[in-house]
Amino acid sequence: MGLKNFFLKKELFIRDIFPNKKFKKNIKLKNIKSLGEAQKYDLTFYDTKKYNHFAKTTKALYCLTTEKLSKDLPTSVEKIIVKSVLSELARIAKIMYPKADIDYPDMSLKSPQKSKYKTVKFGNNVLIGKNVKIGKNSHIGSNTIIEHDVQIGNNCIIGSTVIIKNSLIDKRVVIQDNCKIGQKGFGFLPIKGKNFKFPHFGKVIIDSDVEIASGCTIDRGSIDNTVIGRNTYIDNQVHIAHNVKIGEDCMIAGQVGFAGSTSVGNNVSIGGQAGISGHLKIGNNVRIGGGSGVVKDIDDNQVVMGYPAVPLKEFLKNSKKWVKKK
Amino acid sequence: MGLKNFFLKKELFIRDIFPNKKFKKNIKLKNIKSLGEAQKYDLTFYDTKKYNHFAKTTKALYCLTTEKLSKDLPTSVEKIIVKSVLSELARIAKIMYPKADIDYPDMSLKSPQKSKYKTVKFGNNVLIGKNVKIGKNSHIGSNTIIEHDVQIGNNCIIGSTVIIKNSLIDKRVVIQDNCKIGQKGFGFLPIKGKNFKFPHFGKVIIDSDVEIASGCTIDRGSIDNTVIGRNTYIDNQVHIAHNVKIGEDCMIAGQVGFAGSTSVGNNVSIGGQAGISGHLKIGNNVRIGGGSGVVKDIDDNQVVMGYPAVPLKEFLKNSKKWVKKK
Amino acid sequence: MGLKNFFLKKELFIRDIFPNKKFKKNIKLKNIKSLGEAQKYDLTFYDTKKYNHFAKTTKALYCLTTEKLSKDLPTSVEKIIVKSVLSELARIAKIMYPKADIDYPDMSLKSPQKSKYKTVKFGNNVLIGKNVKIGKNSHIGSNTIIEHDVQIGNNCIIGSTVIIKNSLIDKRVVIQDNCKIGQKGFGFLPIKGKNFKFPHFGKVIIDSDVEIASGCTIDRGSIDNTVIGRNTYIDNQVHIAHNVKIGEDCMIAGQVGFAGSTSVGNNVSIGGQAGISGHLKIGNNVRIGGGSGVVKDIDDNQVVMGYPAVPLKEFLKNSKKWVKKK
Repeated sequence: MGLKNFFLKKELFIRDIFPNKKFKKNIKLKNIKSLGEAQKYDLTFYDTKKYNHFAKTTKALYCLTTEKLSKDLPTSVEKIIVKSVLSELARIAKIMYPKADIDYPDMSLKSPQKSKYKTVKFGNNVLIGKNVKIGKNSHIGSNTIIEHDVQIGNNCIIGSTVIIKNSLIDKRVVIQDNCKIGQKGFGFLPIKGKNFKFPHFGKVIIDSDVEIASGCTIDRGSIDNTVIGRNTYIDNQVHIAHNVKIGEDCMIAGQVGFAGSTSVGNNVSIGGQAGISGHLKIGNNVRIGGGSGVVKDIDDNQVVMGYPAVPLKEFLKNSKKWVKKK
Repeated sequence: MGLKNFFLKKELFIRDIFPNKKFKKNIKLKNIKSLGEAQKYDLTFYDTKKYNHFAKTTKALYCLTTEKLSKDLPTSVEKIIVKSVLSELARIAKIMYPKADIDYPDMSLKSPQKSKYKTVKFGNNVLIGKNVKIGKNSHIGSNTIIEHDVQIGNNCIIGSTVIIKNSLIDKRVVIQDNCKIGQKGFGFLPIKGKNFKFPHFGKVIIDSDVEIASGCTIDRGSIDNTVIGRNTYIDNQVHIAHNVKIGEDCMIAGQVGFAGSTSVGNNVSIGGQAGISGHLKIGNNVRIGGGSGVVKDIDDNQVVMGYPAVPLKEFLKNSKKWVKKK
Repeated sequence: MGLKNFFLKKELFIRDIFPNKKFKKNIKLKNIKSLGEAQKYDLTFYDTKKYNHFAKTTKALYCLTTEKLSKDLPTSVEKIIVKSVLSELARIAKIMYPKADIDYPDMSLKSPQKSKYKTVKFGNNVLIGKNVKIGKNSHIGSNTIIEHDVQIGNNCIIGSTVIIKNSLIDKRVVIQDNCKIGQKGFGFLPIKGKNFKFPHFGKVIIDSDVEIASGCTIDRGSIDNTVIGRNTYIDNQVHIAHNVKIGEDCMIAGQVGFAGSTSVGNNVSIGGQAGISGHLKIGNNVRIGGGSGVVKDIDDNQVVMGYPAVPLKEFLKNSKKWVKKK
């Protein structure tokens, strides 16, 4: 799938953003990206040792960081030493993407033109934004809203009262009634009396053969994207926060919640109401029991349960003690 | 209430489905039903000892099962021995109900004809499918969608932006804004790269005087029905999976989740955010504390709490230890 | 913001409600209010020692209470001794507010008149009730419903498929897609076969600079109001029950649930999926870990986690034991 810019983007030269710092050249920034995703002419940021391994190999030209962390970065990177990496990042993101910090309703929405979507079946009162692409033989249910520049593949079934924005959706995807996909995530700098809203200029990318049940919320990425892998099935009322990456062939039961920036491997199954904390790495073939609270990374092939989640054997042993200890 | 067929249903003769097996007669299947619900000329399935008691008395003519389990079935049943009961069941269900594995949006929706629903009060932009019945003096809120063949009784109050499909709703039922009722549940055979979607040809049945608060999801049954008993009240954002049966006079607080096929007795109260695992039997007059994770059957009159849920006394004793043990 | 009456209200004289009791004068009741909120000519109620401190200073003229509790009330209050305070309260509330026990859809909804909302940007199919006020430069997304008498301040951004009723919303508030705000809460007297629905004649009040993410439900107050303080941010799928009061500068992560009548101080942060029981008092600057189940009051400046929630140090200590004890 192509690369869509869903957000108004301003041209920014590095010397304009940091007029008091010295740079080799006055380069026009291509984008703002995470360490791992950044390409040449991108600005990135490095504010925690946790992403040390990405820091060492980043391709970014510029990196916001602290004095201390700056040593981990390759010499190809021009370091921009700041006190608060995240607040500088937010400031620049807000300049580059001035409209990505609030979900302004799409005012380009219109009834779909039959001539443009010849093989698509539309329910009643469907609203479609500018430059939306919908593949052959897809269905779009009544009262559904698809905002500008969204792409939907062939043979997709989108239910009723669904809202999709800032998203690229591959073929044979099923999205049941009343899902909300692509809205801004829960990211801001807490400031007493008036928080600073962090611009969310990432997307949601949903791979082929995914099924998403009713009432789910999938926030778009803040900087990178939120991604749902091929043939992953998601049950009702699941909440997927910004930047979460879920692999292929996963099964995620009802009311599960993912905090931001967590990545999940392939063939992972997660029981109902489990919660996965932010910035974790869950391996392949992991099974997480219902109601669990996962607060640590999980290696491949583990079965965990509990709050906090521990290997299943331990959970069962402790549960028995819990009951026997009278 | 009557028996509605919400799904396209193909005529199937037993010898056509299993051309290599021998049958006494080439009977036309009436339906596919669970052991307990099946009637003469129905096909049923038996794949776990757990339902042993239903197996012994099933009225079905045909039963998919394994060699080992087949001995539990009465002689009146023609056993169809297969390797994987569920995958054979899914295969046949998909032939009999070819459109029940995906919620295709209802293309028969139209604005309600005033002449057909003389005493019903409709908000704006209501959409009603073919053959919908709505009782006297009921209200239907704005932007609400009621798909084909749904039946709603007298004096019901249905809120705004509600979606109801494949459901039979009795009188004096209140459904608050944005509930989703009757959609396909989370059932499929996991197959790497391309899961097999299990057809859901059951209904949702909601008895009289039920109240369902805002944003709930109630999936229809896969084979049998999902049932909510008389005078049961359900709070916001509750998730009720396929085939769940909830009794009368229950109180279910916000964000509770039920996994599939669990049955709950009468006069049961469940605190907020509790989760009930699948295929459990919860007795009458049970009280389940908020946040509990119920993983075992519960007898009548019990009070339980915790994750996993244990009798309340034990929970409190252990909680004290937990705190004191310094 | 002004004081709006969202509900039909009948004139009630005290002697008409209690024809068999003696009163000094036959006063017309102004309203029904809680002990702390009641003013002269209001009826209040006192049914648990927990609100002892409010009882002593209530300004109400009439108070429903029990013989035993009546001694705590000041002499200025005319005590109305009853067997069941809550059922008498419900009975009277239903007489005074005969339409507040069910959310009848607003039949006054219409497309917005451009002349009335000159600087407001409306999406498609927006529906606005009678006497709705919307401030300058606010945006209202497509398919959104704003029921009669709702007030929305300047520079608010309301998303798509949102439903707002019985609410007063201050300036610069952002409400993302598909929130449901102001519906009736989960309050009733359980009666076998036919519960008595408790009228909800309170409002939702949302202060300035609040942000509420997608798919949240915020119930209106039953008697008093549900309140969200200034600059508080709320993530997706949060459930806030009737009468909850949340302070300023709070951060509430995804899928958190609040049971009714709990109050939360300022600058409180709550992790994802945490549940807060009803009628609790959470202090200022409290931090509650994700997945916690809070069942007791929490003093200012505490950090708690667990189910039931305990101070963080204890939780960590016990979690370690849990894992080591092999």
